[in-house]
Amino acid sequence: MATGEARFPEMPEIAGVRLGTAMAGIKRPGQRDLVVVEIRDGAHVAATFTRNAFRAAPVCVAQQHLAQAAPRYLLINTGNANAGNGEAGMTAARDCCAALAERVEVLPSTVLPYSTGVIGEPLPIERIRGGLDGALSTLDGSGWTAAAEGILTTDTRPKGATRQVALEKGTVTINGIAKGAGMIRPNMATMLAFLATDADIEQGLLEQLLREGVERSFNRITIDSDTSTNDACTLIATGAGAALDGDGDIAAFREALTMVLLELSHAIVRDGEGATRFVTIAVEQARSEDEALEVAFSVAHSPLVKTALYAGDANWGRLLMAIGKAPVEQLEVERVGLDINGVTIAENGGRAASYTEAAGAAEMAQEDIVLTIRLGRGEQAARVWTSDLSHDYVSINADYRS
Amino acid sequence: MATGEARFPEMPEIAGVRLGTAMAGIKRPGQRDLVVVEIRDGAHVAATFTRNAFRAAPVCVAQQHLAQAAPRYLLINTGNANAGNGEAGMTAARDCCAALAERVEVLPSTVLPYSTGVIGEPLPIERIRGGLDGALSTLDGSGWTAAAEGILTTDTRPKGATRQVALEKGTVTINGIAKGAGMIRPNMATMLAFLATDADIEQGLLEQLLREGVERSFNRITIDSDTSTNDACTLIATGAGAALDGDGDIAAFREALTMVLLELSHAIVRDGEGATRFVTIAVEQARSEDEALEVAFSVAHSPLVKTALYAGDANWGRLLMAIGKAPVEQLEVERVGLDINGVTIAENGGRAASYTEAAGAAEMAQEDIVLTIRLGRGEQAARVWTSDLSHDYVSINADYRS
Repeated sequence: MATGEARFPEMPEIAGVRLGTAMAGIKRPGQRDLVVVEIRDGAHVAATFTRNAFRAAPVCVAQQHLAQAAPRYLLINTGNANAGNGEAGMTAARDCCAALAERVEVLPSTVLPYSTGVIGEPLPIERIRGGLDGALSTLDGSGWTAAAEGILTTDTRPKGATRQVALEKGTVTINGIAKGAGMIRPNMATMLAFLATDADIEQGLLEQLLREGVERSFNRITIDSDTSTNDACTLIATGAGAALDGDGDIAAFREALTMVLLELSHAIVRDGEGATRFVTIAVEQARSEDEALEVAFSVAHSPLVKTALYAGDANWGRLLMAIGKAPVEQLEVERVGLDINGVTIAENGGRAASYTEAAGAAEMAQEDIVLTIRLGRGEQAARVWTSDLSHDYVSINADYRS
Repeated sequence: MATGEARFPEMPEIAGVRLGTAMAGIKRPGQRDLVVVEIRDGAHVAATFTRNAFRAAPVCVAQQHLAQAAPRYLLINTGNANAGNGEAGMTAARDCCAALAERVEVLPSTVLPYSTGVIGEPLPIERIRGGLDGALSTLDGSGWTAAAEGILTTDTRPKGATRQVALEKGTVTINGIAKGAGMIRPNMATMLAFLATDADIEQGLLEQLLREGVERSFNRITIDSDTSTNDACTLIATGAGAALDGDGDIAAFREALTMVLLELSHAIVRDGEGATRFVTIAVEQARSEDEALEVAFSVAHSPLVKTALYAGDANWGRLLMAIGKAPVEQLEVERVGLDINGVTIAENGGRAASYTEAAGAAEMAQEDIVLTIRLGRGEQAARVWTSDLSHDYVSINADYRS
């Protein structure tokens, strides 16, 4: 199940990046499950990874390789997360990098591995090795759509976003693809996202732009509060196009990058396991941004709020409960107000005098819902995005070994 | 749905406490929904209440009354939580106390009000007033079973526990009843629990014993991570029986009280909304008890762990994920081990060499499951208890306006 329209944009080519895919039989026969991304020499690459203490082997190896050399290739498999596999998992991840490196004649440390899928099963190295030639033979600048399909697991749709930015010295493009539908409460990044731009951006600035963008996009979505072992978000700047020149360029690029990241992260929520609603939780009038985020995530993670959203029930009692359980010191509940899609349902800590069940029910029948929560104690605000908790979520996760 | 056997014990009388019930038409016609507890003059009463910032009106009024006078009556209604009702809710709670006080000729401040049920609907004061005479006419020392039924909402079973303690100067009894099936992640107490003993215990010690006991029982269960607005746990010591005399008596009483509290809190988990499993999460080898609790609750609240428990899937990958996302500094994952009902499934951060899927599946087929998690970094331990996440949980909460 998913909510909203399935839209995959036309993805222009990014000079300096080519993508190839193969059906290696890791996930299911006849499905793309292996992706190779080739990066031009001289490009800069920044990445953020999961903060889960159980980092999967490919995350550990990717972090080590990133520290050693400028990446030339990304190697992504779906169908197996290579997580929880101990030392054997590390060896498997390194072997896959080496197998690709040998074929393309680069150092193994210039290959970054990524895996997603079932945890705790040995990585099928031979299948991955067997798929490499096929993936390399399809390397092409137009390979974004096929790559977006090649990284999916329980997702029902490929997810992509693209923007162009006019810089002082020319127009550059930012492309991004992402996957993820469950175990989604990213902490640094989501399950897997890959972005590339032809802009020329020095390493430090690239890392800062990615960190800031991820903080306001992937780190603000949640489907089920569970943080994956394999989260990774990677941004390539090939430098084949214009360089960022001055603060105006940086601001324009930052804005476009944020839009791509938001569009991808929202697409993940819309395709959340069992999702029937896309819910924006906007907390306003907080003392700090952190406080606003605490309240927003408390509401977004509440199973009782999420089941009410699934039922289309404007259950403001559960919403107040979820606001009240957030770790906020001395919340004055008589100042709290709450809107659903602009209809005020609670004010001064209780039901609004103007509120009618009919008005609330009409808004809760929408697929897209904006909950606005006013804390009445400051000027800070934050937004997070989430989905509801449906029967399909239970079915998907009681049946699927992930 | 519920897990384990439904057992309601023979509840002996507690000298100094009488309980009466009525069908006041608040919940559904023909169901007990109003309970009055009469407490002898000179008794001591301790209580803990929810830490949710949105405390319901009866919680606020009960806290005020407790600070003003020694309680003589508890007045409990189900079917309506009188929460989120603002100033009108406070007035309604006080009016109900006054109506009872007038009939029994005590000060209104000696009546403590408790409400549970739907949030945000006006308390039906006239129905409560109309039920008072009926409840008072049934006051009896043997009224525990009827009272246990009279406080239920979505619960499928009444919950009671009793213990006798041999003190230096005579044997005393502790009785307890509780209700709660959803919105269960108590923080100070659970939805509603009422305990009484005939022991003679001075106020300060009584409060300490209750606080300690609740910390290790109700504050260590979770069904859905949602903390109610109406949680309250009340302990009456009538003093009609033997006094606690010396440290030996205090230790014996503390142990018996803890057993009653644990039995009630476990009964709540077994009757959790949609529960099909009763799960003990025992975290060992932690650096601190707080750290052990963080890990235990991270696992207990994980929707992916809970759906795997529902499916009977020994999904140790999800368990490692949930351990790894807990806010524990510098967890060394290669030291982490994990047992299911004594069968080691993970060690050194990965699948145990001795583990077989068949052995794991056999244990996961049990209704009662003990997950033992060894962090390998210290001597501290903690246990929490939880249930699984089933289709019925979604059905109950997508249909029921609570």
